[in-house]
Formats: sequence, C-alpha cells, structure tokens
Amino acid sequence: MTVFTGNHVLSVAQFDRGAIEKVFMVADSMLPYALRKKRTQVLEGAILGNLFFEPSTRTRVSFGTAFNLLGGEVRETTGMSNSALAKGESLYDTARVLSGYSDIIAMRHPQAGSVAEFAEGSRVPVINGGDGANEHPTQALLDLYTIEKERKSHGEGIDGLNIAMIGDLKYGRTVHSLSKLLCLYKNIHFTLISPHELSMPAYICDMITNAGHKLTITEQLEGSFDADICYQTRIQEERFPSQDEANKFRGKFRLNQEIYTKHFQSKTVIMHPLPRDSRVEANELDNDLNLNPNLAIFRQTDNGVLVRMALFALTLGVEDKVSDFDRPVHWYSNKGQS
Amino acid sequence: MTVFTGNHVLSVAQFDRGAIEKVFMVADSMLPYALRKKRTQVLEGAILGNLFFEPSTRTRVSFGTAFNLLGGEVRETTGMSNSALAKGESLYDTARVLSGYSDIIAMRHPQAGSVAEFAEGSRVPVINGGDGANEHPTQALLDLYTIEKERKSHGEGIDGLNIAMIGDLKYGRTVHSLSKLLCLYKNIHFTLISPHELSMPAYICDMITNAGHKLTITEQLEGSFDADICYQTRIQEERFPSQDEANKFRGKFRLNQEIYTKHFQSKTVIMHPLPRDSRVEANELDNDLNLNPNLAIFRQTDNGVLVRMALFALTLGVEDKVSDFDRPVHWYSNKGQS
Amino acid sequence: MTVFTGNHVLSVAQFDRGAIEKVFMVADSMLPYALRKKRTQVLEGAILGNLFFEPSTRTRVSFGTAFNLLGGEVRETTGMSNSALAKGESLYDTARVLSGYSDIIAMRHPQAGSVAEFAEGSRVPVINGGDGANEHPTQALLDLYTIEKERKSHGEGIDGLNIAMIGDLKYGRTVHSLSKLLCLYKNIHFTLISPHELSMPAYICDMITNAGHKLTITEQLEGSFDADICYQTRIQEERFPSQDEANKFRGKFRLNQEIYTKHFQSKTVIMHPLPRDSRVEANELDNDLNLNPNLAIFRQTDNGVLVRMALFALTLGVEDKVSDFDRPVHWYSNKGQS
Repeated sequence: MTVFTGNHVLSVAQFDRGAIEKVFMVADSMLPYALRKKRTQVLEGAILGNLFFEPSTRTRVSFGTAFNLLGGEVRETTGMSNSALAKGESLYDTARVLSGYSDIIAMRHPQAGSVAEFAEGSRVPVINGGDGANEHPTQALLDLYTIEKERKSHGEGIDGLNIAMIGDLKYGRTVHSLSKLLCLYKNIHFTLISPHELSMPAYICDMITNAGHKLTITEQLEGSFDADICYQTRIQEERFPSQDEANKFRGKFRLNQEIYTKHFQSKTVIMHPLPRDSRVEANELDNDLNLNPNLAIFRQTDNGVLVRMALFALTLGVEDKVSDFDRPVHWYSNKGQS
Repeated sequence: MTVFTGNHVLSVAQFDRGAIEKVFMVADSMLPYALRKKRTQVLEGAILGNLFFEPSTRTRVSFGTAFNLLGGEVRETTGMSNSALAKGESLYDTARVLSGYSDIIAMRHPQAGSVAEFAEGSRVPVINGGDGANEHPTQALLDLYTIEKERKSHGEGIDGLNIAMIGDLKYGRTVHSLSKLLCLYKNIHFTLISPHELSMPAYICDMITNAGHKLTITEQLEGSFDADICYQTRIQEERFPSQDEANKFRGKFRLNQEIYTKHFQSKTVIMHPLPRDSRVEANELDNDLNLNPNLAIFRQTDNGVLVRMALFALTLGVEDKVSDFDRPVHWYSNKGQS
Repeated sequence: MTVFTGNHVLSVAQFDRGAIEKVFMVADSMLPYALRKKRTQVLEGAILGNLFFEPSTRTRVSFGTAFNLLGGEVRETTGMSNSALAKGESLYDTARVLSGYSDIIAMRHPQAGSVAEFAEGSRVPVINGGDGANEHPTQALLDLYTIEKERKSHGEGIDGLNIAMIGDLKYGRTVHSLSKLLCLYKNIHFTLISPHELSMPAYICDMITNAGHKLTITEQLEGSFDADICYQTRIQEERFPSQDEANKFRGKFRLNQEIYTKHFQSKTVIMHPLPRDSRVEANELDNDLNLNPNLAIFRQTDNGVLVRMALFALTLGVEDKVSDFDRPVHWYSNKGQS
C-alpha cells in the first residue's frame, strides 16, 4: 500500500522517509491556517465521517477540527453500545454503509486490525485513529513532527537524535510506532528506560539494532539525562504482576523541575502522549514543569492538528490547492501556539 | 395532512402515488451531488436539528449527511437519559424549545406516536426518523425507491411487481410500511413467508387484498423463488413463545449463494433493511452473497441519502433551486455507488 | 475582569449596567437572523468548542445553534465518563489541549469553579455554560433580556420592576444570578416566595436590601399576585429534610390558568428556567397556561439564542460586522418567535 491521494492511512509501515517529509512539508504549510492568520475553504462541502467506536475526546476533536480548518463538514459517531456492530453486523457491512455517507473517514475502534478490516469494505479513504493495541499512526507522525520541529529550532535534523523513552514501553503503543518511524532515520541513540516487566518488546529492539542505531536499556531514569528528547509515558500499576512489584517502581520515573534543573541538559525537550496523570501519587510529569519552555506536550497536540490537516489534504489530493481558497479571517484571534 | 413545503413528514399514509413520484424524481436529481460529480450550497446556513432520542447510527448519519450534501449545518442530540424529557418535560415543551434552534427537524424516539405529538408543538417541519413500533417513513420510501430503480434497470415499473417478504413480518415495521406504499400501485403479487407466529398482521393482508393485489402466504422459503424482489428481514428468536418453537425455524429462511444459484431467477433482487446479522448461527443473508450483483442492500442505504435529500429539499421548498447553487468539487472522489 | 473582545464570560459579576445594555443591543440586532429574515456568514470558518462535560441538551444546542447562525462551525463533546479528565488529567491540561482545537469555547461542568479554572489554561475565550452550583451567566442574561423585552412591550424599563420569585430559592442557581443582575437596576421590588427550608441565601437578601431595593419574604403564593414578573422554579422534594416537610408544600406554589385569571394582574408575565415538570403530581406551571400570551417560558429559550449570539459576536469582536456578511435565505421559513 502506498500513501496519499485516494489511499488509506492505516499503519506507520506505509511511510518511507520521503512520504514522511512530504507530510511534514504540508503540515508546515498548515500553520498559518491553524493560527488563524489565514483561512481556507478548499474542502467546503466535503464530509468527514469521524467514527469513534471507542471514545477519545482529544483525538476525535483533533480530527474534526483539522477537517473544519480546511473548510469541510464533520459527521460524528461516538461509542459502540447502540451500534449495528453491537447487533452482530460485520465490519464489512458497516464500512459499505457508512462509507456512503462521507468523502473520507477517520476511525478508532478498540480491536486490533479492525480499522484495516473496515477499510477493505470502505468506498472512501480511511485514516486509522487508533485500533486497540495495534496502531495509532497519526500519533506517531505528530510525535515525530514535534521532534523534527524542536530539532529544527536548534538547527538540527532527526538524524543523530539522542532520545530517551521512559515508562511503560511494553504496552505503550505510541513508543512502538515512534520507534518504527525513527528507524527510517540515521544514527539514532535510543535509551529505553522502564521496569523490566514493562520493557520494550524484543522485535522493536531488534529492529533498532538491525537498522544500525545505538540502543541502551536501563531501569534508571539517569539514562535520560543527556537526551535531546525525553519521551515520558504513564505507567499503570495494574500492569505489574503484584502490588509489591509496582511499589518498587512507584515514583522512580517521575520528572519534575528540580530533577530537570539539576540533571538535564538545558535543551532537553520533554514529550508525553497525554493525558498525563496529575494526581499527586501518580504524576509522571509534575505540574511545576508547566513553565519550562522545553515542555513540548502541548506543542504535540497542536502539531497533531497540523499533521491531520496534512493527511486530509494529501489523501483528498488538495495539498497544492489550499491557498487558492483563502478567505479573510474576520474575527478576533490571538491564540498563538502552545 | 399534505406533503412538502412547510409540512411534516410523519407517516407513509401522507403519500399518494403522485407525491411518491415527485420525491423519486427529486431523489434522482440528487445523485450527481451524492456521487460528488456536483456540489450545491443551496441550504448554506440552514440548520437541521437531528434529534435521536433513540440511538440509530445509520439513520442519524444518513439524515445528517443528506443535509450536509445540500450545504446545511447539523445540530445533533443522541439518547434520552440526560434529557429534559427524562426529567418529566412534555414532548410539547421539548418541541416548543428545540424547534427554536433549527429550520427543520429529523427525529427518532422509541415511543409510538411521539414524533407526531412533538410535531404539534414544533414551529418547524418535522421528519419522522422512526417512532418505535409505529412508523419509519423514510425507510419505506428508500425501499420503494430502490425497487423502482432496480425495476427501471430492467425497463419495468413498480406496477406488476412480484415481491416476496421473508422473516419476521409481525414486528418488522419496514415490511408493514413498504406494503402500504406498494398498495398505491397496480397488480402487485405479495408472497409473505414467515413462521405462523410471526406472520403479517391481518389488517395489512386485508389492505393488500382489498386493493386488488395477489396475496400468497406460506411458511416455505420456496415461495420466493420466482420473485422480482426478495425482501429479507431478521428473525429475533426471543419473539417466539418458546425456544422449541424458535428452533423449528432456525436457518429455514436463510439465503446464501448456493440457494440463490440453484433456485432463484437470475434477476431476483435481494433487499434487507439492515443490519443483517453476520454471526454464523444467525446470518439471514450469507456473506457469500456479497459478490452477487443483485444484492441491493448497500444500494438501499445509498438511496436513503438521496431520498432524505429529496425530502429536505421539498420540505424546505428548494427542490427547483438546487443547481442554482452549484459549486465545483475540488477534492479527490471516486466512490461511486454501491 | 472586563467583558467582551478576547475575554472570558465566567460570571454575572463581570457585568455592569453598560455592559448588559451592550449585550442586549447586540441581541436585538440578532433577531432577524434567528427568524431567518436575514442570514450572515460573519463567522464562516470559525470553530466553537462546545464542551459539555455535564450533559444539557437545551443549553448545548442553544450555544451550537447560536454559533451556526453566525456562520461558524461547532465541534462538540458531551459527558465526562470517557474523558481524559476521568483518567486524572487536570483541568489546566485539558484546557491547554482543547483550546488548540477551536476559536472560542462554551463549557459546562458539574463542579463549581471548574470553568474559571479551565479558562486559566485556555488560549481562547471561554463562555461559562454552567459550573455546578456556582454560575450559569448566559441563563441569567437571557432571563434579564426576556424581562427587558416584556417590559419594553408595555413601554417600561427594568427600573421599577416588581418581581416575584417562587419555589426553590435556596438551590436555584438561576434566581441567585438573576437577583445579582437586577441589583444593577433601580427600585426593584423583590418578593421571595418559598418554603422556609428553601429560602433565598442571606447574602443575596443582603445584597438586595443594601442596593436599596424593596424585599418581601413570604411562604404564600399570594405574594406574587401584583407582580410584573412571576419567576417560577421547580421544587425537588428530596431537598426537604423529610417527606412530611415536603408534603406540607406539595402543590402550594403551583400555578394554573384558574389561579392566574382569578388573582393575577392581566399583564403579569410568567417565567421559568425550564424544564418544567409536566407530571400531574409535580407540575409547577400547568399546561393549561400554554395558551396564555403572558407565559414567556418559550420566549426565554428563543431569547437565549439571541443572547448567546450576542456574546459570541462581542467576544470575537464582530458585533459591528455581522450585516457586512449578509446572504439571502433561499429556503422556506415561517417559524416566527414563540
């Protein structure tokens, strides 16, 4: 499967470095629209079917907003309890029917492989918004895009990156997909920091070393101190075999401003797929980091809108026409980017 | 109650043959818009209140999409658990309030008669999207429209049709409404195939014979073999007085490609109101029929969008202005019809 | 905190008399758009984030419709059970993220103070759509706007008003906020009618008397007979310490046409924040009042759309540009106002 006009976006495996660079170039061109310096009606009249059979406010609204920012309309479905799927309808039937109601579909579903199965029955392009433990390619792309922008602000590219990934690397879908994408680049140093019980799957470690990258594995937060990017994830204690095991690691990977100031390089960028847990006993990224300019977690979600706009534009073949439909912005806007 | 500009669409009983032909003519004119050969902004700025007090993804999105395809906006409500209705508000009050928020309303509600009661309080036209066991007129119209299009492709009209209705004819709202509409035509041969416990209500059988149509009643699938249209419905086993009774009929009305090839005329069209149940033990229309070009089930849902567009256009009095607001389609589209 | 362009609308305390008069003047100018005599696209392409973490069909749809009537798009979220907030995310994080997805936000949340806390993290203006027991400023403004319009039809202003407030004055957020706004005017006579257990909080009574208004407190419906405005609210029996206490007051504040005809001035206007309870045993405003032209309860909800349009226009700084983007209305419309 190739990428772009008329095709589905189901997996990070579809993307080679050239395709990624194309997405990022288009995403860059979307920034003035997201910041309301400009406005476009290029997709006026087009309809996005935003099908979230598993609820996810953030991802759902990000897709919907991205489509609105291009001038299109959104028809939305949330949850599955009352759907035909719950009455025994196949994903194929659901796809044949619902693809008659829109020009493009963004879909999330709790079951691994479901979005690809749906896509086979669909008559319009489908973008995977997360299919259970399997894939969430737009999250991986927005993470990589954030890394690229943060590096660019230091005059550097993704090649040569030193990245630490911290927390639950076993079940964390985002770090798996991000690792796969990073393997398309050169000379990456991966430092994987997690309790042994939650370590990165062997096939990803193999992929990293086979691609010639440097791999360090540790259970100590200290491994992240000289990283360019520190990608933090949440650890759910129920993942451990026992509470005793969980207790051993509670708070061990927690970052706050004191640790950052004392140990990290001043340019280390902190990322997280969100939501972070703000409860005192669980907080993996302390709120006292909110004023740290290298906390990129809200730039990630802002970038998500740009990446999704880019994927919509590319998939519907309008990436070169966007500015032909520019319209003035009449209303007050001063939001800036995070 | 008459039909069209400014009036409610509550029941198939409102429609005479002339009104139906008008709806179908307008629905035909909507096809290029649904297929994205053309785009219209005729309802730009108009607001549909899409009130689904009983969830139904398919019907809800079909109404919403139909309104978007005419250029309008959709404000949606799904479910009833947190609504004012649940706090003891009358349908009259709900209607007085919510009709202040839109130009037209599509409404589904689990209680028979509720949509008509709501319509009495509404200050804008209301289209019945299903009121419990009572009516679902847009489904009946899309079914009849599908029959008309399938017949037309063979150079025939609805008059003279030979239709078999199969499955649960007692509780199946769709076959009741479709039968009423077919009674407006001439020389129909109805073959009604169901377990005795789930047979067509007597008042509908009387309506059929009183209108001079031919009526055959049987418990055998064989009755459908020479039909032009084979309209299949789902049997829910809990409808039977006992599991023993249910077991007697399990699988007896199930259609698959082998039966179709062996017994049916090559032109017999298979319809179903959907969702069909794809679980092996229950499947009333086997998935191996998916490649059969006479399986019209997805053409039905596509036609539903056209019929709903037609009803919106007629009710809001814009059916002759649609093409005055044509705009180019800028994006990739290749979906075709099912 | 001041009001309007670029600022949040969180509390009635932000409004002085001049600001209220500005809102009402802009609301007046919105009437032809709501009645479909005119149509505007002034906010074409703008996005409202309609965040209802606590469901409220009426308020949610009213905000959404108001934004659509100005030409904008709406991205909606309902409920909290599956949200990041439920997973431990802070309101600050939620605000930082979601404010990246829209140009303005309307938000309801069950917890007092939550909307103001959210607003601190938001990069776009936030309008409070109700935060638990705390505030619901757009309801208070639409109530006051309704009073102003009803008075104007008799050639009078708000100064000198004689208003009776009836029912649950202890927990009824709407009567608290309305009282605060009325304190900005002159020579108001407040008659507060409630069971002692559900009487108006002392701080509001003090505010009324300190502002020089006349205050009458009673447990008898008779106190309302010479009022210009009779503002009725619902009493929930579970508010009483015991069912015996509740029984003492059951039906005592119930209004119907017979009581109205016998006791009230012919110009007394009846208001209610809705929903009223139409069940026989509970009905605080009998359905036989529906034909009474002084029943203003549906004018209140219609006015709510105008007030919300005004707040959107003012907050986004387009209040003087609305008619620059007028477009013709192509479709049938005859809804009028309630």
